[in-house]
Amino acid sequence: MIVVTKPDISDERIEEIVQYIERAGVQPHVSRGTDRTVIGIIGKADPSLAEHLRSMRGVEDVIKISKSYKLASRDFHPDDTVIEIKGVKIGGDELVVMGGPCAVESPEQIDEIARLVKAAGGQILRGGAFKPRTGPYSFQGIGVEGLIMMAEAGRKHGLLTITEVMTPEYVDICAEYADILQVGTRNMQNFDLLRKLGTIKTPVLLKRGFSATYDEFLNAAEYILAGGNPNVILCERGIRTFEPYTRNTLDLAAIPSLKTLSHLPIISDPSHGTGRRELVEPMAKASVAAGADGLIIEMHTDPDNSMTGDGVQSLFPDQFAALLKDLEKLAPIVGKRFD
Amino acid sequence: MIVVTKPDISDERIEEIVQYIERAGVQPHVSRGTDRTVIGIIGKADPSLAEHLRSMRGVEDVIKISKSYKLASRDFHPDDTVIEIKGVKIGGDELVVMGGPCAVESPEQIDEIARLVKAAGGQILRGGAFKPRTGPYSFQGIGVEGLIMMAEAGRKHGLLTITEVMTPEYVDICAEYADILQVGTRNMQNFDLLRKLGTIKTPVLLKRGFSATYDEFLNAAEYILAGGNPNVILCERGIRTFEPYTRNTLDLAAIPSLKTLSHLPIISDPSHGTGRRELVEPMAKASVAAGADGLIIEMHTDPDNSMTGDGVQSLFPDQFAALLKDLEKLAPIVGKRFD
Amino acid sequence: MIVVTKPDISDERIEEIVQYIERAGVQPHVSRGTDRTVIGIIGKADPSLAEHLRSMRGVEDVIKISKSYKLASRDFHPDDTVIEIKGVKIGGDELVVMGGPCAVESPEQIDEIARLVKAAGGQILRGGAFKPRTGPYSFQGIGVEGLIMMAEAGRKHGLLTITEVMTPEYVDICAEYADILQVGTRNMQNFDLLRKLGTIKTPVLLKRGFSATYDEFLNAAEYILAGGNPNVILCERGIRTFEPYTRNTLDLAAIPSLKTLSHLPIISDPSHGTGRRELVEPMAKASVAAGADGLIIEMHTDPDNSMTGDGVQSLFPDQFAALLKDLEKLAPIVGKRFD
Amino acid sequence: MIVVTKPDISDERIEEIVQYIERAGVQPHVSRGTDRTVIGIIGKADPSLAEHLRSMRGVEDVIKISKSYKLASRDFHPDDTVIEIKGVKIGGDELVVMGGPCAVESPEQIDEIARLVKAAGGQILRGGAFKPRTGPYSFQGIGVEGLIMMAEAGRKHGLLTITEVMTPEYVDICAEYADILQVGTRNMQNFDLLRKLGTIKTPVLLKRGFSATYDEFLNAAEYILAGGNPNVILCERGIRTFEPYTRNTLDLAAIPSLKTLSHLPIISDPSHGTGRRELVEPMAKASVAAGADGLIIEMHTDPDNSMTGDGVQSLFPDQFAALLKDLEKLAPIVGKRFD
Repeated sequence: MIVVTKPDISDERIEEIVQYIERAGVQPHVSRGTDRTVIGIIGKADPSLAEHLRSMRGVEDVIKISKSYKLASRDFHPDDTVIEIKGVKIGGDELVVMGGPCAVESPEQIDEIARLVKAAGGQILRGGAFKPRTGPYSFQGIGVEGLIMMAEAGRKHGLLTITEVMTPEYVDICAEYADILQVGTRNMQNFDLLRKLGTIKTPVLLKRGFSATYDEFLNAAEYILAGGNPNVILCERGIRTFEPYTRNTLDLAAIPSLKTLSHLPIISDPSHGTGRRELVEPMAKASVAAGADGLIIEMHTDPDNSMTGDGVQSLFPDQFAALLKDLEKLAPIVGKRFD
Repeated sequence: MIVVTKPDISDERIEEIVQYIERAGVQPHVSRGTDRTVIGIIGKADPSLAEHLRSMRGVEDVIKISKSYKLASRDFHPDDTVIEIKGVKIGGDELVVMGGPCAVESPEQIDEIARLVKAAGGQILRGGAFKPRTGPYSFQGIGVEGLIMMAEAGRKHGLLTITEVMTPEYVDICAEYADILQVGTRNMQNFDLLRKLGTIKTPVLLKRGFSATYDEFLNAAEYILAGGNPNVILCERGIRTFEPYTRNTLDLAAIPSLKTLSHLPIISDPSHGTGRRELVEPMAKASVAAGADGLIIEMHTDPDNSMTGDGVQSLFPDQFAALLKDLEKLAPIVGKRFD
Repeated sequence: MIVVTKPDISDERIEEIVQYIERAGVQPHVSRGTDRTVIGIIGKADPSLAEHLRSMRGVEDVIKISKSYKLASRDFHPDDTVIEIKGVKIGGDELVVMGGPCAVESPEQIDEIARLVKAAGGQILRGGAFKPRTGPYSFQGIGVEGLIMMAEAGRKHGLLTITEVMTPEYVDICAEYADILQVGTRNMQNFDLLRKLGTIKTPVLLKRGFSATYDEFLNAAEYILAGGNPNVILCERGIRTFEPYTRNTLDLAAIPSLKTLSHLPIISDPSHGTGRRELVEPMAKASVAAGADGLIIEMHTDPDNSMTGDGVQSLFPDQFAALLKDLEKLAPIVGKRFD
Repeated sequence: MIVVTKPDISDERIEEIVQYIERAGVQPHVSRGTDRTVIGIIGKADPSLAEHLRSMRGVEDVIKISKSYKLASRDFHPDDTVIEIKGVKIGGDELVVMGGPCAVESPEQIDEIARLVKAAGGQILRGGAFKPRTGPYSFQGIGVEGLIMMAEAGRKHGLLTITEVMTPEYVDICAEYADILQVGTRNMQNFDLLRKLGTIKTPVLLKRGFSATYDEFLNAAEYILAGGNPNVILCERGIRTFEPYTRNTLDLAAIPSLKTLSHLPIISDPSHGTGRRELVEPMAKASVAAGADGLIIEMHTDPDNSMTGDGVQSLFPDQFAALLKDLEKLAPIVGKRFD
């Protein structure tokens, strides 16, 4: 950690800051520059020290050199984390595809879609039973019934299942029916939910907040890891920018960046990341080329009549199958396999 | 609602869309332009209709003319909402100042700060008992004990109290001890929390999500209003932009804009909105000049040693008192009073 | 174009607006909805009509249905534009790679780099003679001399050349020495420069402004096209967002989006788009997978000592060569060839 | 300047970096922390050193402590700069109001508006003769004729004049007719234009680029100052964010922030900063409350028929006069006078 002082600071005040640092049990090293004095800090400081120092009179800035997350950092865990669920490995050399509708609507719908996902080569069935919606008057999902329908369809067609959990009370029941629990973009900093997910072992797909930095994203993962659940899968799903054409701006540089910063697997969501059906295929391929460990893609047999209206970004089954065919050829070029 | 079709759409597909709209119980009006055909829709449509139409083949865009929130909209509630709590009126011609520390730390601390807030002319004591923190290793607040300490200090000094509630289970106990419940920026779209807050009558100060549009902000308010709690106070607290100098960019145009769109009171938070002590005073004044109904400001007797490290943006007591003195003169110029 | 009126507009005011539209030589169609009246406009309106209508009393919004750019739009030019320069075709099925240093530094430097670009399979040599710099005290390029050195190196090694032009007066001399002229991100809306480039026939690589929307980007291209120069190549080079880890956020969805909206070729710049050497390779591959017609990549033989300090994002020659080898395999999967 | 090395750097590489720094004529101070080694640099380094170091192998980050701008910095110029033009002082205790149309349209128009600006108490007449426009088919201003009309109207009514200059060739003629030259937001980094403005003495109002940081803004000012023109006035005019309701987000915290970082005067533009007429008055007041030295406001006698369509944000003359009346009362509260 480095403390940058204001240009007009007095020697007395520097001395007070130095003593404050020493009382915190770490070592200050003062360097006097032409414009400013900086105080380097050596040793394992309490995370709040930076914040305290920043608020002290005479301090212009505090620059953290060490990262605030530890368990999520590659610094202390150089090897890739590979999460294995019933034979499917996420984070290794296997490319993983999660496909399905935005929302589970009926047993027939989810069964038919599961069949199509499996036939195309996907390994995991996605589908929402509880839906976060911007306005209170929109369709909010069919609830626990949807969980059961999806679990049934997954079992029948030999697919793992993933579903979104929105609140701590529903974590246990969702974990009973689904193989992976998804935390949505608006809940990335719902700390109570993260803490609850840290108490179980079910793998969690954590979506990046639509305005979260990589640092905040990895700190959110750290909440789950610190609670005792090592099975966290990161998911880039687009960030909010000034561009109105796409619903979000899919930040694909997040994939190799997070691979550098962390050992956790990372999945890309080109459906929510663009909000436009015609962009899903090119951005899915680009995600894999950028090094993603997998994809989560919306597919619907009848997008015109989807209950959430998210049909606008859902692939038709034939588009989904064609995309997965292309991925077979693309994956080996970037060191993955998909077959 | 207006449906814009793609340039190459066939007459048959237009006819199918028209029939789809008629089946939804509303009236389509087709206008053929030089480049594109547009279909205007008249009548009260279900909110999901826009989403369905947008996902239909041949549709380029769907433009909503009516707003998705109703109870929060000034269209249907032209008069300002004024929320009265034990004689303090929020949203009328009285300027309201909420002051206090980021976190409640001890009975002595909160008592002393309450005394100073009251002496300076503030009406409401703020203080956090539960703190949302980016990383799991930071100080998370002292919990229910803090609620009790703050309630005691408020009662003793004749101040209302406001505190943040982070999760549905804590709504009832927080409402027992505090006069106003605050929803933090990261929880603006924690829909379960919003729904729970809709079931009580305690006023809610809803902070704008740091990347939420005005439309999303008013939709979040709509969740609470639709649940049956009419006492919602909006709070602008800065948005995330590319500028690194300030912690957030305080969007003061939100104040007159939200006043145009909605009848709800609106408060400004120049402390979190800037993250720098020296900017709090000018931005507090600017907020009032822009038409804010009140301010929420961090003040601490010993910012160097605040437990959250948010001391960097806390005013010293004398700065707080001097600011409130200036507000007495400023308020009347914009049609408010503060005395 | 559609005019949305305010909820409280009088019938008289609607009539005035209708008459105003008729005087502009186009046809108004009035539809009265439940909340608002909308007026559709049919016919070729002057581009300023929307702006005038938006400023009229009683008007809430004006929504443009037709696009403000015409020559850049795919609506009126369904086939891809392919620009051929001395046998190299940009925008067709050939993948084009532009490589070279940020700045031309000496005849030896540019000659050696040209040799390496050619050996790796690149077709075009990039290098700056005039450098736009944020601060006045940074190295500003070596000027016309650099142009001559680069032209010489390109000729010797059988490469086309591209260089940045920053001001209208230098367009002619740059066009004398380089095969393609580049407009930098800060100059995307330097309208005088765009107009000057419209008067020549030399191909122009137009970089997206780091905060420009697709619509603004295509309007900037329209300036050049409308002047009479049909040879415009678009270039996505990253946008400014809240994320501090990467210098910019490379918006790869821009590639398929701009392909939908326009017929112009589009190139990706993963070097400036990320600002980090280790991200260039994955993002270059992702760009090709997303459908880019080519890449522009910084490569330097001695990045530690580059004169601009942009070495941080420059590939070493062996990294450059290895990337191009991989592109040979990747290109065919997305319908391109690179050999 | 501080160099942060990568966790896995070898002692040899650290030694090489240290020697590199010494060769640059400045002193390295190595501190070995638990995770990383940092090298502090003391002495006046060449601005390119940071960039070079950042690109060196083994370096994770380089943090600049000193600012890259010098003449614009308050560090070396503690007193406020006050620019006096024919008796009007900008940057002192006088509040300055610049009013007028977006574009000069005719002698009668500009004469009538000048009369109204003067009557309301404004000191400076604004009006565009050359207009930067997003698309090539929009009205581009009436050119030199407009300059002459505005100069004439200013002289007749005793107002200073300000107009935008878009290209270096027009600097001299604009300076002949106008008292202040304005650099528009899209030209903030048109370095040729900035350099040309550095060679004259006419005051320059430099608008912040709509996506420029404070640091980039002050570096742009530095170009003009370094050229020899000390008369630079900063102007906050709104930045681009994700919020679609306002055209820009007026960043009022820029006012006290830039006052801290720099000694230059700062003006606010609530017209372009919001793009909505009804927001101009509250945001003008908020700007003054935040500490602005003045305002630049669009006013038009017939906004419905303005030639640029920017009428949507132009005040009517009576609104303009009422606002200036209120400013008389507001200014003294923040230590300014306006009379």
